[in-house]
Amino acid sequence: MTDRFPLRDIHFLLEDLLDLEGLIDHARFAAHDLPGVRDILDLARQLAVDVFLPTAPILDASEPQLVDGRVALDPVAKEALDAYMEAGFLAAAFDEEDGGMQLPYLVTTAIGVLFAAANTPLLSYASLTQAAANLLAAHGSPEQKARWMQPMIEGRYFGTMALSETQAGSSLADLTTRAEPQPDGSFRLFGSKMWITGTDHGMGENIVNLVLARLPDAPPGTRGISLFIVPRLLEDADGALTVENDVRVVGLNHKMGFRAAVNTVWALGDEGGAVGWLVGEPHRGLTYMFHMMNEARIAVGMGASTMAWAGYRASLGYARERPQGRPLRDRDPTSAQIPIVGHTDVRRMLLEQKALAEGGLALSLYAASLVDRTRLAREAGDAEEARRLGLLLDVLTPIVKAWCSHYGVRSNDTAIQVLGGYGYTRDYPVERLFRDNRLNPIHEGTNGIQALDLLGRKVLGMGAGPVLLQEIGATLAEAASAGPVARELAGQLQVAVQRVVSVTTSLAGVGQTGDVDLLLANATPYLHLLGHTVVAWLWLRQVLVAEAQLASYPDDAFLKGKLAAARWFSRWELPLTAHWASLLDPVDRTCLDTDPDWL
Amino acid sequence: MTDRFPLRDIHFLLEDLLDLEGLIDHARFAAHDLPGVRDILDLARQLAVDVFLPTAPILDASEPQLVDGRVALDPVAKEALDAYMEAGFLAAAFDEEDGGMQLPYLVTTAIGVLFAAANTPLLSYASLTQAAANLLAAHGSPEQKARWMQPMIEGRYFGTMALSETQAGSSLADLTTRAEPQPDGSFRLFGSKMWITGTDHGMGENIVNLVLARLPDAPPGTRGISLFIVPRLLEDADGALTVENDVRVVGLNHKMGFRAAVNTVWALGDEGGAVGWLVGEPHRGLTYMFHMMNEARIAVGMGASTMAWAGYRASLGYARERPQGRPLRDRDPTSAQIPIVGHTDVRRMLLEQKALAEGGLALSLYAASLVDRTRLAREAGDAEEARRLGLLLDVLTPIVKAWCSHYGVRSNDTAIQVLGGYGYTRDYPVERLFRDNRLNPIHEGTNGIQALDLLGRKVLGMGAGPVLLQEIGATLAEAASAGPVARELAGQLQVAVQRVVSVTTSLAGVGQTGDVDLLLANATPYLHLLGHTVVAWLWLRQVLVAEAQLASYPDDAFLKGKLAAARWFSRWELPLTAHWASLLDPVDRTCLDTDPDWL
Repeated sequence: MTDRFPLRDIHFLLEDLLDLEGLIDHARFAAHDLPGVRDILDLARQLAVDVFLPTAPILDASEPQLVDGRVALDPVAKEALDAYMEAGFLAAAFDEEDGGMQLPYLVTTAIGVLFAAANTPLLSYASLTQAAANLLAAHGSPEQKARWMQPMIEGRYFGTMALSETQAGSSLADLTTRAEPQPDGSFRLFGSKMWITGTDHGMGENIVNLVLARLPDAPPGTRGISLFIVPRLLEDADGALTVENDVRVVGLNHKMGFRAAVNTVWALGDEGGAVGWLVGEPHRGLTYMFHMMNEARIAVGMGASTMAWAGYRASLGYARERPQGRPLRDRDPTSAQIPIVGHTDVRRMLLEQKALAEGGLALSLYAASLVDRTRLAREAGDAEEARRLGLLLDVLTPIVKAWCSHYGVRSNDTAIQVLGGYGYTRDYPVERLFRDNRLNPIHEGTNGIQALDLLGRKVLGMGAGPVLLQEIGATLAEAASAGPVARELAGQLQVAVQRVVSVTTSLAGVGQTGDVDLLLANATPYLHLLGHTVVAWLWLRQVLVAEAQLASYPDDAFLKGKLAAARWFSRWELPLTAHWASLLDPVDRTCLDTDPDWL
Repeated sequence: MTDRFPLRDIHFLLEDLLDLEGLIDHARFAAHDLPGVRDILDLARQLAVDVFLPTAPILDASEPQLVDGRVALDPVAKEALDAYMEAGFLAAAFDEEDGGMQLPYLVTTAIGVLFAAANTPLLSYASLTQAAANLLAAHGSPEQKARWMQPMIEGRYFGTMALSETQAGSSLADLTTRAEPQPDGSFRLFGSKMWITGTDHGMGENIVNLVLARLPDAPPGTRGISLFIVPRLLEDADGALTVENDVRVVGLNHKMGFRAAVNTVWALGDEGGAVGWLVGEPHRGLTYMFHMMNEARIAVGMGASTMAWAGYRASLGYARERPQGRPLRDRDPTSAQIPIVGHTDVRRMLLEQKALAEGGLALSLYAASLVDRTRLAREAGDAEEARRLGLLLDVLTPIVKAWCSHYGVRSNDTAIQVLGGYGYTRDYPVERLFRDNRLNPIHEGTNGIQALDLLGRKVLGMGAGPVLLQEIGATLAEAASAGPVARELAGQLQVAVQRVVSVTTSLAGVGQTGDVDLLLANATPYLHLLGHTVVAWLWLRQVLVAEAQLASYPDDAFLKGKLAAARWFSRWELPLTAHWASLLDPVDRTCLDTDPDWL
């Protein structure tokens, strides 16, 4: 039996690639050691497989319903989430003083990988709650933390984020929900919201909705948006949570996938105003939200690569067991059929998935480790290192979000193809993974917006390129005296890096002309160019580890698989950087110059 | 309002690109003229939009059910198909002497485009019936034609094809259903079948299942397979169709998409044997089936590109109407939002779809025109021309099937991205098109099998390359003295053709060593290499027409759109041929040499 969720994959990335041991040596993580973290991962995997995984097809088939104006979920959702909460996983990322386990973000992200591999949409209820609690931890008043954050960490309340509106999805500058101040210091909110995930489900004692809205004196645009706590239930005179807030779910969005995660349309204030409380200062709501955005986008990339990984493992298991056809040179129809993994083209499809999925996982987890390292540097008073690591994280974030989601969907598409007709049926998980994953290039900022952010803001605006190239350069230097696969990949990577440098220099020149339309016209190929370069770098780092370990374990199939996938990426994908570079230097004007009327 | 199914697209391809007028000038089509064909296309479009299109979301949501062992479909399916039959479209492709309209295959394929754009899975009931009738027209006895083919052409009976079995999907050599001869000349069939589409639905008076099975004396493998007529209903003593044949639907396959087309698992012969009649000679069944395969594969490619076209048109309409965001240089949040088609990256996504969809449609319809031209040459006694055209069709068929389906799915993926969150909901057609289209890389021979067929059989085995390159060469010669867009694209195409020639020569050398595993290891990139070259050629042919017409109509937006999409394909896609060529010359061994245990 092929292991669907092998822990060795996770251990390799955390311990051998990302130096988890060095990270938890830090005083902040004094309560933890490597065996302890392994135990936690063991438990997470077991719970994910036993409790989350069986709910995935059920919750996909039994979509959330709107019953008497409230969201009704299949009860297996609550059972699985309760088990997750009871095991303490929701609290894992929080500090001990807040009742958490004070684990590195790297480890909680890896825990997330295991649960997401089993059922990503279900995990989103927990992830949103963690994000809401995080936001209040950073920007809430002590009273707000006690009243709203603490019950979320304890798993009693859920949390959501309410940003978008029908006319304001990608363009949050245009949101119009308004908040009117009341004499008692609270606010009443009026308006509507769209695409609100994980709300109004009746699991837990209450739901802490974090809602963006405008104060009466707010300036237009993104600088006039404030953040409010708008709970689902309010206290009655006796302090019991019996009063429904004036937030009405007026519709559900019926999605192609990700169906376990209810997604709603709201009307606020139809009956006098939704009661809310301002978080932090007026007009700073979007800034607060964006503090969370790095981690939300890493989580999207992690989820996308995880679903790619889950699809890869499922299709690998199928390919090893499904007999069909014979070797090309075998013309005897009475000979036994072979498992399809014996066909070269099937191995191509498996290598593709492995390279994309494990490359994306390495990238997502590396980004998660940067969250830890940035925080540790800041707490240690090393502002320069914190700035450097923060910049590195800034430039990688849109890549993690967009690259992992784009190539994650492609990987899931390939998983279906491995299974053929069976892959197209709902009897196997791969079609569900494909449908679920298709959300990821869209939400938390579309991939097109990530590309603009990467090129316009991170690389050219903040000048974050050199920090990244320095890191890559260090690995290239190391590879020069390493094994043959490392040296081959390093040679290809060096070429890709030169392309990035040359294209970026050329684009900086376009930027100096002030022609921002031309500069950003082909931001998407730039994202692919830099994304493939970064993923090749993380494959090179995996190869360095694998070749070193192979010296001691020359027959280790796992390590040989790492080399094969890296070689595949180096030869079958990385050369595409030449093509993307050609569209950017000079900037190809085809899309820019096409008149909408011609389409 | 953006036209979802503009007839000008079809007219351009049929009349301006593929010389429909020259085709119908032939005596065989004497009953038709251009205005008449246009009227037929008008009617098809209207019926497709009025009758087929509204059923698409209904039949997607209300999947076929198994009720008391029989297939139950939503009644809108029958209503829509009845209207299609009554208008004569099912019979359109058949000869007048058989009760048909004797239209060119090119025209009936274009009619198919219009209905497929509205609801491809529903159309499959008609397409399967046409294919079954075609097969009997070619190989049935006069008695079989009268009894089974005629009622299908009249729209009274439906038809299906039953090839696959659970253990024999891609490998038909392994099918085991057996047929035992009876004293009365009939047969009794025993076994099981898998993936049987469009059967047992109760629409029409009967269903003519064409079933592959083995006779008792059959040799093993593909040369021991015979073809049988196994109707759903048999006549009782009074000649009434009241007796159910011993073909039991034991399960439905629940698919990701293409749900309107019921797909079933059969048990044959549980109650004494399913009654069947042999078609043609014993052991020749697969040969007969493969006679139909070219057209079936063209139909798959046509359907895939059509769904890409439908997605393109839907996302174009959305992009023109959906306001979101502002021009990059506009920093004023109080200015009006612009339609998203104003963003360059959205135009990139629309150009991509247009290039892939209209390129694939041009290729599919070109292949359909070759079916006509091959037949006309054969009927005119020009064996050499018939052979040449047949070879051209042979080499293009796997490309039509695999290229159009692979890039059709990618195009539908991009359509979703244009719509963002809305595209991910079932309120818009693009997610359904994506799900429906995902079947096409799988059925009628997986794309991996098409790649083996293309490289191993068509190019190296049959030597079909030169015939194709000759055609492309003629267009290149024409382009040398044509307009600027044609000349640019021709330059790129010339480079791609040189890559094809060089790679093919090199592969022929590998073939001479007898190392068939190495030869065919990277057949998939070969298919992409030759596919992109062929589609670029058909874009060049469109450009030649468009630039010529622009001389008379310099402001025609439609023609300018053709140039923009061709330029996009030339710059953003065609250069990828360099990458695929690099994997083939020399043949990259990464996939071949990867041990399954390493994965």
